[in-house]
Amino acid sequence: MPEKALRLYPLPTTEIYPTDIHTDLQIIPHNGEDLRTRPYIVSNTVASIDGRISVEGKAGGIGSAVDRVAMRNLRARVDAVMVGTGTLRAEKLSLGLEATPGGSQQPLAIIVAASGEVPVRKNLIAHEGQEVLVISAEAKAEALTEELSGIASVLSVPSERDDYPDLVLALQTLKQEYRVERLLVEGGPRLNRTLISRGLLDELFLTIAPKLLGGTPDQIRTIIEGSIPAPKDLSLTSIHLAGGEIFLRYYLSIPSV
Amino acid sequence: MPEKALRLYPLPTTEIYPTDIHTDLQIIPHNGEDLRTRPYIVSNTVASIDGRISVEGKAGGIGSAVDRVAMRNLRARVDAVMVGTGTLRAEKLSLGLEATPGGSQQPLAIIVAASGEVPVRKNLIAHEGQEVLVISAEAKAEALTEELSGIASVLSVPSERDDYPDLVLALQTLKQEYRVERLLVEGGPRLNRTLISRGLLDELFLTIAPKLLGGTPDQIRTIIEGSIPAPKDLSLTSIHLAGGEIFLRYYLSIPSV
Repeated sequence: MPEKALRLYPLPTTEIYPTDIHTDLQIIPHNGEDLRTRPYIVSNTVASIDGRISVEGKAGGIGSAVDRVAMRNLRARVDAVMVGTGTLRAEKLSLGLEATPGGSQQPLAIIVAASGEVPVRKNLIAHEGQEVLVISAEAKAEALTEELSGIASVLSVPSERDDYPDLVLALQTLKQEYRVERLLVEGGPRLNRTLISRGLLDELFLTIAPKLLGGTPDQIRTIIEGSIPAPKDLSLTSIHLAGGEIFLRYYLSIPSV
Repeated sequence: MPEKALRLYPLPTTEIYPTDIHTDLQIIPHNGEDLRTRPYIVSNTVASIDGRISVEGKAGGIGSAVDRVAMRNLRARVDAVMVGTGTLRAEKLSLGLEATPGGSQQPLAIIVAASGEVPVRKNLIAHEGQEVLVISAEAKAEALTEELSGIASVLSVPSERDDYPDLVLALQTLKQEYRVERLLVEGGPRLNRTLISRGLLDELFLTIAPKLLGGTPDQIRTIIEGSIPAPKDLSLTSIHLAGGEIFLRYYLSIPSV
């Protein structure tokens, strides 16, 4: 790990410890009206210089140790961490914290079940005291409840298309019944697309690792997979640098409803 | 155009005019041994946050006016500007400077001809006093010489595979006969891949525009199209910021031959 990191923006530039990236973060909901019915939602991704977010489906090898700390620093500032099933299928992953000092809690781990297998038992690394919630379309909810008995709860919502759960309804329930005020989404690109194309994403954190990966078109996954209704303009609000890796934070300007 | 820009890195942070990004640039060849036989090669690309470098094949709409100035500032610091035919086919483009004050010259415009049409006449916007050179595999060179008579010269080199010219030989000729010491490559992703996978790229400039574009996999083009032998680690050497757009400069560490 490099010895120091820089908070380059906003000014003034400050030298910090690499482990302190995002620790001073205030996640302050700024899209007031929308938040009566859903949590404030931020996403976090690490990409290569050429925009790839996975190698053979796995994000694991792209970011550095500093990026993994920054990712956990973000997790410590939210109530829940969410991924789609594609991301869970790709590799073993944790959605929690290594330790929860000072009486803080593990964030709720949330999996959005699409069609196919939901390998919570196989791929989700459990943390002591961390609850796991699978959001499922009604048609699959009963089978999942049985399959995941003892390790995860299942939130059943109407399906929106095919077997994909209606996220707007799920987010409303997360806010009202699970008291999730701040939600961190860690991919994958299809979940990002769903959130972004409906104006449900409030902030985007992006780490750019100083690597070129290349790849044939069928291997390339970027932050968003699939079309969105129109390009989104974002505001860059902070920049950190450590060991050649840059950490960007953007606000999405979401039209008020 | 925003009123000011920041040179964030290297420190100390400096406020500059947005039109001055890269004007203080020293392109100093740092891979000595390789440069006996080829120019020093830098590439420049603008991408969206989600890593896309074109929309319907065209890069034109992604960067801001500041990015276009920074691009020209780079062009003013090299002897030649190169693109592949795919990039030339996609849209009308210039590879030169709006003006050449102080007796400076237009850079040599170079097109690397792959298979198919090479629409120099249709899509390359000519600048007064700018010479145009098309690098072609031998098999196509005679037809191209005739077709482009009066607007471009053709450099014929052996083909490497299919109709693609041997770039290593072409670069050697550019250095020795055309006195190209510094070469700027402006895409596309297949040309980038060829250069990167052979260790021929020395620096990479990347502008990240604060936009999310999305797209289905067949629409997504990133900096590199195609596999490269192994991931490349780069060094981030400068960061500028203007109007939410960031301008990154990386060195590729190329093993000495």
